[in-house]
Amino acid sequence: MRKRRAAVLGATGIAGQQFLVALARHPWLEVTRLGASTRSAGRPYREAILDAGGARRWWCAEEPPPEIAALPVEDAAHMDPDGIDVVFSAVETDAAKELEPKFARAVPVISTASAFRYEPDVPISLPGVNLAAHLPLVEVQRKRRGWKGFVLPGPNCTTVGLAISLKPLLDAFGLSRVLMTSMQGISGAGRSPGVTALDIIDNIIPYIPKEEEKVAAETGKILGRLGEGGIVPHPAPVGATCTRVAVLDGHTLAVSIEAEKPCTPEAAIAAFRGFRPDYAGLDLPNAPGRPIVVHDDPFRPQPRFDRNAENGMATSVGRVRPEPALRNGLKYVVLSHNTRMGAAHGSVLVAEYLCRMGLL
Amino acid sequence: MRKRRAAVLGATGIAGQQFLVALARHPWLEVTRLGASTRSAGRPYREAILDAGGARRWWCAEEPPPEIAALPVEDAAHMDPDGIDVVFSAVETDAAKELEPKFARAVPVISTASAFRYEPDVPISLPGVNLAAHLPLVEVQRKRRGWKGFVLPGPNCTTVGLAISLKPLLDAFGLSRVLMTSMQGISGAGRSPGVTALDIIDNIIPYIPKEEEKVAAETGKILGRLGEGGIVPHPAPVGATCTRVAVLDGHTLAVSIEAEKPCTPEAAIAAFRGFRPDYAGLDLPNAPGRPIVVHDDPFRPQPRFDRNAENGMATSVGRVRPEPALRNGLKYVVLSHNTRMGAAHGSVLVAEYLCRMGLL
Amino acid sequence: MRKRRAAVLGATGIAGQQFLVALARHPWLEVTRLGASTRSAGRPYREAILDAGGARRWWCAEEPPPEIAALPVEDAAHMDPDGIDVVFSAVETDAAKELEPKFARAVPVISTASAFRYEPDVPISLPGVNLAAHLPLVEVQRKRRGWKGFVLPGPNCTTVGLAISLKPLLDAFGLSRVLMTSMQGISGAGRSPGVTALDIIDNIIPYIPKEEEKVAAETGKILGRLGEGGIVPHPAPVGATCTRVAVLDGHTLAVSIEAEKPCTPEAAIAAFRGFRPDYAGLDLPNAPGRPIVVHDDPFRPQPRFDRNAENGMATSVGRVRPEPALRNGLKYVVLSHNTRMGAAHGSVLVAEYLCRMGLL
Amino acid sequence: MRKRRAAVLGATGIAGQQFLVALARHPWLEVTRLGASTRSAGRPYREAILDAGGARRWWCAEEPPPEIAALPVEDAAHMDPDGIDVVFSAVETDAAKELEPKFARAVPVISTASAFRYEPDVPISLPGVNLAAHLPLVEVQRKRRGWKGFVLPGPNCTTVGLAISLKPLLDAFGLSRVLMTSMQGISGAGRSPGVTALDIIDNIIPYIPKEEEKVAAETGKILGRLGEGGIVPHPAPVGATCTRVAVLDGHTLAVSIEAEKPCTPEAAIAAFRGFRPDYAGLDLPNAPGRPIVVHDDPFRPQPRFDRNAENGMATSVGRVRPEPALRNGLKYVVLSHNTRMGAAHGSVLVAEYLCRMGLL
Repeated sequence: MRKRRAAVLGATGIAGQQFLVALARHPWLEVTRLGASTRSAGRPYREAILDAGGARRWWCAEEPPPEIAALPVEDAAHMDPDGIDVVFSAVETDAAKELEPKFARAVPVISTASAFRYEPDVPISLPGVNLAAHLPLVEVQRKRRGWKGFVLPGPNCTTVGLAISLKPLLDAFGLSRVLMTSMQGISGAGRSPGVTALDIIDNIIPYIPKEEEKVAAETGKILGRLGEGGIVPHPAPVGATCTRVAVLDGHTLAVSIEAEKPCTPEAAIAAFRGFRPDYAGLDLPNAPGRPIVVHDDPFRPQPRFDRNAENGMATSVGRVRPEPALRNGLKYVVLSHNTRMGAAHGSVLVAEYLCRMGLL
Repeated sequence: MRKRRAAVLGATGIAGQQFLVALARHPWLEVTRLGASTRSAGRPYREAILDAGGARRWWCAEEPPPEIAALPVEDAAHMDPDGIDVVFSAVETDAAKELEPKFARAVPVISTASAFRYEPDVPISLPGVNLAAHLPLVEVQRKRRGWKGFVLPGPNCTTVGLAISLKPLLDAFGLSRVLMTSMQGISGAGRSPGVTALDIIDNIIPYIPKEEEKVAAETGKILGRLGEGGIVPHPAPVGATCTRVAVLDGHTLAVSIEAEKPCTPEAAIAAFRGFRPDYAGLDLPNAPGRPIVVHDDPFRPQPRFDRNAENGMATSVGRVRPEPALRNGLKYVVLSHNTRMGAAHGSVLVAEYLCRMGLL
Repeated sequence: MRKRRAAVLGATGIAGQQFLVALARHPWLEVTRLGASTRSAGRPYREAILDAGGARRWWCAEEPPPEIAALPVEDAAHMDPDGIDVVFSAVETDAAKELEPKFARAVPVISTASAFRYEPDVPISLPGVNLAAHLPLVEVQRKRRGWKGFVLPGPNCTTVGLAISLKPLLDAFGLSRVLMTSMQGISGAGRSPGVTALDIIDNIIPYIPKEEEKVAAETGKILGRLGEGGIVPHPAPVGATCTRVAVLDGHTLAVSIEAEKPCTPEAAIAAFRGFRPDYAGLDLPNAPGRPIVVHDDPFRPQPRFDRNAENGMATSVGRVRPEPALRNGLKYVVLSHNTRMGAAHGSVLVAEYLCRMGLL
Repeated sequence: MRKRRAAVLGATGIAGQQFLVALARHPWLEVTRLGASTRSAGRPYREAILDAGGARRWWCAEEPPPEIAALPVEDAAHMDPDGIDVVFSAVETDAAKELEPKFARAVPVISTASAFRYEPDVPISLPGVNLAAHLPLVEVQRKRRGWKGFVLPGPNCTTVGLAISLKPLLDAFGLSRVLMTSMQGISGAGRSPGVTALDIIDNIIPYIPKEEEKVAAETGKILGRLGEGGIVPHPAPVGATCTRVAVLDGHTLAVSIEAEKPCTPEAAIAAFRGFRPDYAGLDLPNAPGRPIVVHDDPFRPQPRFDRNAENGMATSVGRVRPEPALRNGLKYVVLSHNTRMGAAHGSVLVAEYLCRMGLL
């Protein structure tokens, strides 16, 4: 199989760097083009990530892939999609609104930006949960917009662990209410400026603007069904409180649900353990061996010890127990790696699925 | 008014030290006796808090009160209650089961231990919420047990912010369900050994043994009504997830309630702001000027900036908004200082109330 | 005594806010004018510190002084010095180069900026150490520059604890070498953007640009003597490594010195304890009761427990012991509050000294 | 080659667990026996690491090696050395004094304990620096003590980075003084109780009992030469200040040296880069590809980003520059992973060297 040639937009930012790491030595995909702002354009990547003082601005634990170092950075606003098979977009929302449709005219665009998440003909792609179910929308999108490509945004990083953990419960017991409190890692806020140390050491920030609305809307849409005019969101209301805590990576969520049918912890654990993601059997390179890891130790999951499970692609669940305050109530804690499954690596998994489906 | 002579049990531990700080220069109370384990007994306090290597084991930000320094530490197991007007008990649960009844035979015992919290004739004293309502139980306790004194334990530090914030909502709108996720400061776990740094830096511990059961039972009891055989707990179920985060002091709670009557955020804020604690008008030295501080800024309350409001005696509420996942639903964030209102200072406020009531 | 009318430049930034807190309810000084960038100008202070979303950008633990709330913020670039007795400047270096001379033409300017620190006719004012010794330069400055006022910058916050602790050693034993490693709190880096949480949690940053050069040059100048053409720096070389650690406030320094004469720890401790600052006896409102606090407990000083000693105006010293690697060697650890004595409060102490000297 | 059968003493503690991780799937060594305290003895390992409440007490990021799970834990005090080729000892000092000689009668003992570090016939084994030079002492030890085996302790984890970085400088320029300030990670203090979170969040502890003396003595001994009666320590005095900071893993040291010969940063960097460890060419499984990694970026090394270089076996050096306060002065920052090269993995590297030398 010929390797697909990928462009990464926003390649010098933290999210773009995560794409470069996720795509390094990928068996099916190779990064051949890099897009960034005008300021970075025209220099080889290794130089584009130096600041004015010559210090390197690179924020991943992994070193920059050597094969990228000499690639020239292009001005994303003027890149030509010729010779590109797929675009990974890691730009800010405003830039995404401009750039993503331009590329989607020619090629598939897989994005971590929220710009298109709430369009009726655009699914929010969450591998394991709704890739198979919502992929038919791609054709609707192409037809309606006259594109050869399409746009597939992934969910907000906080939605990821919630929606993946809800899916097996929904299938087994039905779902009538969801309440959730998140304790989110600081890498979810990006890096420039991101969360200031003075704000978070010995502290909690009890508010993340727009996050709760995103989680509620996206969870409903991801768990929804394909109807006539697009996706019909699942009707269970989602009440969220999203907070920021002094954790580097990993979003921890305390979840309570009201199921439609009686739902014991044992049955819920069986549902989690038996969850078969929609990419199962496709042998995708980034698919986690266990999509949901269930902990019996009540002190787990913990972000520092569990966020890297299955290379950061697993969703870790623990403390599964009855929720006394809800009918058919169930409570649990869920942890997901916000910059792995919750960002670039999750998007690469989407791309792998598209390869298998012949859409890439 | 003659100052009441107070004994502090567990005086060398972190909770006992907080009592010493809370009682320093108190206008109505003075510490005249110190009890601790056999190991510490027989030495002046200033020496009893030195470890084998001569380093001082003192954990409050305030210095040890100078008037305490020369007081001899007695073996709590063999202290004579003569000449003591009130005992403040900061010992561990097992020790409390032994010691508190011995002292209660003669004098009032105000305690941060959980040993007697769940006895039917013992109220869990939370100033502002149930001092007036549940104080008649003291007579029942005396009669039933043949004591001259009585035992008044305070609630678990996590219950404090929850129950105080629920009280005005209960009074105004009724209460049918409570769901809560706590993010608790590490000082709540004490100091020897307390929380190990390796466990909490860049991490969350999603489980605190027995905490959720305590919060549920205590909240129900505190909000309950006095019935024939003791307190009839309030019937609203309380579903809690209690977690530990990298915050030094302050317990932050994300709360969702289902009210019996419609309850807008505006009406809830009015109820919080209008809350009149049961100690109002008594001019107690440790009473907070504002028992509940309501924040409009959605980024507040934050533990580092708000835990010390009203000298750590206020309950700070913010992010008051509808809970979409519950009927008559309301959501908010509440913060309380776990070692101030949630421990020794709260107990001293109880003692001040008892003074005014002629019970001390 | 009529209160001096003070203007604060950079009033909306973190350093300016610290000035407002330091000047609140000051017995001799009152803030009557506020200067900031064009962007903030024209609004009352309470509104000038709201961001676009209405959230308050205020970073001190203390609330904004109420008497400031309604004061209009002026464009610092176009403020008229009429009616101002003293200017406190908390602007960035580039702005300071422009603004401070404009004001100094008319009134004294006391500054936390580095813009004028290295001019030969400008002393770096460190209360206790060189106010008396270097103040004659003010007249040189006035004459040479034709100003009615003058500029008095304070030292870099890292220099403060070093120079104060060196002064009694220099006086008692002479000084031939200084080696220092700092572990600096993050508030020293300001707030926009300051230190990013992703950079400092579970981490150390071993480099602070220009800091080591500043510390070396400023320490030499502060400890220097007044000569013909200005200050002759003390010749002892200062070798510094400046690092940033996950501490909110307080700069901790491990210092080694080679003295000219033999210097035992006991003699050094006596010198620290006997230190008589040059403002002694003047009864200045912000003067610390003990300018240097010496700890016997080898586990002290610690930033969290000791930075607020004497309201953040003390320099705390501990671990005084021989330095085996230097002749007449002495080692110790010193802690100073970088945003109290090391910034606005230190500058206010300078102003108080000037009041007593009739220069304000 | 037959795999050597290894026993791990102290197998249930954090240091012992690190040995199990370091030895998992080792090509030359296999763990066949586990020793611990009487309390843990008699149970399979997987059960011996459960606490009373059933929670697992395992502190490595890696999972417990599956081949260990069913191995029975023996009482270390009564283990028979039959069938053991080598003992890895991770017990506390007092236990080490008892146990290590018992085993050394029969087999080589490689230890992280300090019990035998300061005996004249015992080298402190630091791979790369003194394995070859000091190994002849093993024969002295055997003869003098009548043992078939021997004891080889590794250095204190803080000594490791210092001594490795000094070695190439000593060889190239000679060494007359060393001054060092350490900022040590909390995992260096072990885990029960280790560093309490209340002590280290937003704080620095400026003292680690006995650490400075250990670093001074051990560095001198490691860099010393073999003389008649044992090792003659290198005479350069080492003045250390050892502090604890809020970093999980990794010890960062700010080092200043006075060399005997002029020593430019460029020449020093060349010496670091050209360093040829004494195990070079032996192809040892745990040998780092680059023993010393030199950083040009002045913001490096940082513990979070660099501690895992070369699987935690590299010593990272940065900020190499002149030390103005010393003659022929050089300054740099060095980082070493305290629980990798500085503990179990370093000891395993010693074992690998012994295998190649025919001593195991």
